[in-house]
Amino acid sequence: MGNPYLSDLDKNEANYQPLTPITYLERSATTYPTRPAVVHGEMTRSYAELYARCRQLGSALTARGIGSGDTVAIVCANIPPMIEAHYGVPMTRAVLNTINYRLSAKEIAFILDHGEAKVLMVDKEFSALCKEALRECDAKPIVIDIDDPEYDGPGERIGEIEYEDFIASGDADFEWLLPEDEWDAISLNYTSGTTGNPKGVVYHNRGAYLLAMGNVVTASMGRHPVYLWTVPMFHCNGWCFTWSISIQTGTHVCLRRVESGTMFDAISKYGVTHLCGAPVVMGMLINASDEDRKPLDHMVEFFTAAAPPPAAVLAQMKTAGFNVTHLYGLTETYGPAVVNAWHDEWDDLPEDEQAAVKARQGVRYAVLEDLSVRDPETMAEVPKDGETMGEVMFRGNVVMKGYLKNPNASREAFEGGWFRSGDLGVWHPDNYIQLKDRSKDIIISGGENISSIEVEDALYKHAAISACGVVGKSDEKWGETPVAFIETKPGETLTPEDVISHCREYLAGYKVPRLIVFTELPKTSTGKIQKFKLRDKANAL
Amino acid sequence: MGNPYLSDLDKNEANYQPLTPITYLERSATTYPTRPAVVHGEMTRSYAELYARCRQLGSALTARGIGSGDTVAIVCANIPPMIEAHYGVPMTRAVLNTINYRLSAKEIAFILDHGEAKVLMVDKEFSALCKEALRECDAKPIVIDIDDPEYDGPGERIGEIEYEDFIASGDADFEWLLPEDEWDAISLNYTSGTTGNPKGVVYHNRGAYLLAMGNVVTASMGRHPVYLWTVPMFHCNGWCFTWSISIQTGTHVCLRRVESGTMFDAISKYGVTHLCGAPVVMGMLINASDEDRKPLDHMVEFFTAAAPPPAAVLAQMKTAGFNVTHLYGLTETYGPAVVNAWHDEWDDLPEDEQAAVKARQGVRYAVLEDLSVRDPETMAEVPKDGETMGEVMFRGNVVMKGYLKNPNASREAFEGGWFRSGDLGVWHPDNYIQLKDRSKDIIISGGENISSIEVEDALYKHAAISACGVVGKSDEKWGETPVAFIETKPGETLTPEDVISHCREYLAGYKVPRLIVFTELPKTSTGKIQKFKLRDKANAL
Repeated sequence: MGNPYLSDLDKNEANYQPLTPITYLERSATTYPTRPAVVHGEMTRSYAELYARCRQLGSALTARGIGSGDTVAIVCANIPPMIEAHYGVPMTRAVLNTINYRLSAKEIAFILDHGEAKVLMVDKEFSALCKEALRECDAKPIVIDIDDPEYDGPGERIGEIEYEDFIASGDADFEWLLPEDEWDAISLNYTSGTTGNPKGVVYHNRGAYLLAMGNVVTASMGRHPVYLWTVPMFHCNGWCFTWSISIQTGTHVCLRRVESGTMFDAISKYGVTHLCGAPVVMGMLINASDEDRKPLDHMVEFFTAAAPPPAAVLAQMKTAGFNVTHLYGLTETYGPAVVNAWHDEWDDLPEDEQAAVKARQGVRYAVLEDLSVRDPETMAEVPKDGETMGEVMFRGNVVMKGYLKNPNASREAFEGGWFRSGDLGVWHPDNYIQLKDRSKDIIISGGENISSIEVEDALYKHAAISACGVVGKSDEKWGETPVAFIETKPGETLTPEDVISHCREYLAGYKVPRLIVFTELPKTSTGKIQKFKLRDKANAL
Repeated sequence: MGNPYLSDLDKNEANYQPLTPITYLERSATTYPTRPAVVHGEMTRSYAELYARCRQLGSALTARGIGSGDTVAIVCANIPPMIEAHYGVPMTRAVLNTINYRLSAKEIAFILDHGEAKVLMVDKEFSALCKEALRECDAKPIVIDIDDPEYDGPGERIGEIEYEDFIASGDADFEWLLPEDEWDAISLNYTSGTTGNPKGVVYHNRGAYLLAMGNVVTASMGRHPVYLWTVPMFHCNGWCFTWSISIQTGTHVCLRRVESGTMFDAISKYGVTHLCGAPVVMGMLINASDEDRKPLDHMVEFFTAAAPPPAAVLAQMKTAGFNVTHLYGLTETYGPAVVNAWHDEWDDLPEDEQAAVKARQGVRYAVLEDLSVRDPETMAEVPKDGETMGEVMFRGNVVMKGYLKNPNASREAFEGGWFRSGDLGVWHPDNYIQLKDRSKDIIISGGENISSIEVEDALYKHAAISACGVVGKSDEKWGETPVAFIETKPGETLTPEDVISHCREYLAGYKVPRLIVFTELPKTSTGKIQKFKLRDKANAL
């Protein structure tokens, strides 16, 4: 007898449907139509209303000829139309392209052209920027103004129709479309591009569905979470929380300005249960003035990424009522796909050791199939010794489709059957990974690898240093030598000798910077230090 | 320009992997190796141990030539080897067939032959049953004895090797296999078959992965749930909780005998957070003797299915410390795929109204794409009026592949692009569905449909009735008339007149049974009343 499972058990409409996060919204709207879905200023909308508006948006876009594979771009703060775009656009099988409003007009022009935007929705706050971008690009998208009643700053309408009128022209009973295939694109997210032009990372419906679920599981989100928007939704679709919140019929609390006062107000007024944010957001919360701060009657779950939270910050966050979880991922992995999964027994460690274990990026999400640290040449796994450096690699269903119209970059990224993150790290004996550097930021001196992160960590231990960047400078004898660029705190002065003797306390001799430069550091629109500019500077010294 | 998303964005190993619940276990074992995975009597095994044993099982099966598409059957109580089989068997790409040990030897023989079992694992408690089944069937599986140290009842070893020795022969570092395709079969579950031969329901890896996730979301399972096994794992793979528990690295608490004493002991000793069970299990908990009962220091989440929980039971469960959620599904939908999603405001309703809203089966799981009540002839949706009856239909990724070697039954089940449950129900204005009957159990009298469930509900309101079944009897004038078969409570006596006058209080005249029969009701091995036998009886009256 052969394999009896191979016949007459095929896929059909009843037992196989494309995975897409749109279905999460439909379920919440039909199950809990009156639950609050979106809060913005004085306005609250129910799930029935949110769903109706998303369908209207889909309907109105369809009426303008938007459909499968068309790009709909949006430049917008964390306000309701941004959430609606995450459902209304894919309802037409079009692709949502959220654009970072901290980019230059030139960069936005590049993205509009490269992504072939057919529609551009513009928050009035960013209309001047977009007007200039439109002048500089070849794309001729339909422009829709978003005139948020909660916004009273400068700006003009630059489009042919205002968002509310556009929505009003759509049908709330619009028969939206499932993707034809779950592999179809749902969104397009450009990397911030520390070098060269940004790359267009394409997400598929399957991955968006799964990462949204992964967030719920990772965050232990029960029914009706209340989620405060601090991570920009233009970053990896808000780390896919735009979709996660619909799974448990939660409430999106919008926030145009991320400030300590508005955050504490929202947390206390709406009973926020979860929020995400970069380290700078933690800083705002713990450094809030007494006037801004509100006592919280419940523990709030806070998810951070981008940099390991220091011990002092963790302790202060705890006192302020926040439990911090450390996540890691890249635009190419839909945002977070790795979590510092906490062990209860670590609660008993001294605070600095707790911070040390929490600084590690951790283990794969339940919805990521594999995570590995490998030699980028041989593809062999590095030993789990916490010391041997390798490249962090991802494999699974929450990895992008690839880079739009950039087959070479896609091929490089996927070479060897893994997504190569470009991040260098070690693998600890307990299977947790820890980043050590970006591969291009490693400094090779006298044949020894120097992690620029390690040198920067040592520098940050100096009380007078507020920011720093360490890069390699070409050197005939050593290949490269480390150079440190340093910003000091206001009112502080330092000499190169102070810095070097400080470093000697923490670092092996060959890792101590040979040159110290006091300067203002060049940063990207998202606040990342532009190492390539420092590298140029170092080599020009 | 065409659709730019159609080129150079293909699937590859890095961004597409088959969904399978095996990866959940691997993640828990590498992330939390020392967490307790399985508790049985005095024995506790960690996730590292559970994972190692599953790999050993996979390795040992592979060494015996078991692989893709081979059926591995098991007849076993809710003890550790049953959990291990849920991972170890699919690790070889074989298909797990858990068999109901309450079936007759003849029925088991049919299943072994029909499923083409290559291996049969037998819990000693059921060895006599299996020995007879093996005599009656043509299949010649490798027989492995499971000699549970916690079991001290009668039984002999009937196989060629004991499970622990078999496991010991396997390699704990076995390189287990992902399914070739997520659509591949992972398990085979025979329906209990109220009529004719049981049908073999085939589950795919994709659905098992998704329903396991759906349970976690539906049950709001945070990190490290403690799950008490009362639902037999041979029912829909334990409603897929066998796999769900690995997602949040929870603890399986095994229980060979479901009794009030052992349940309360386990709940209190291990801090059980979640359990599932049929109404009979709720009865055990609320009717526990003072000796068996333990005060609980936390609310326990209880998930029930099969019959709506009555108001009195819900109130008593609450007092006993259990929050009850009502689920619904069929073997064909991996167990529960519908949930009575609770609304907080319903907490304010009077108890009987709470029970009435909780009696409704509810809405789709987040991982089921569509749920509908339709006219089985025209496929038109019935109005959402809470009155018009139609057939409950499912569509989505947690619907079976089909019935094994039964293309006609599969075709019938999927006709019209929906899985036709055979259950009749109504759709309420708030989108919640409520079952009214099995389609074959509806009684058509004088052209009017009579729901046998409605008549039975009325009968159950009589304090002296412990169980009942209502069926149609052929009638020249009316087509059919309703007949009630009734079991009375011990010490109670009733006359047909008592019953009829009781029914008149609750039912329209045409729904009142024409004949009343006091008798012991015929039941299946799983406790379902065999309506087809009652129907024969009624027509012979």
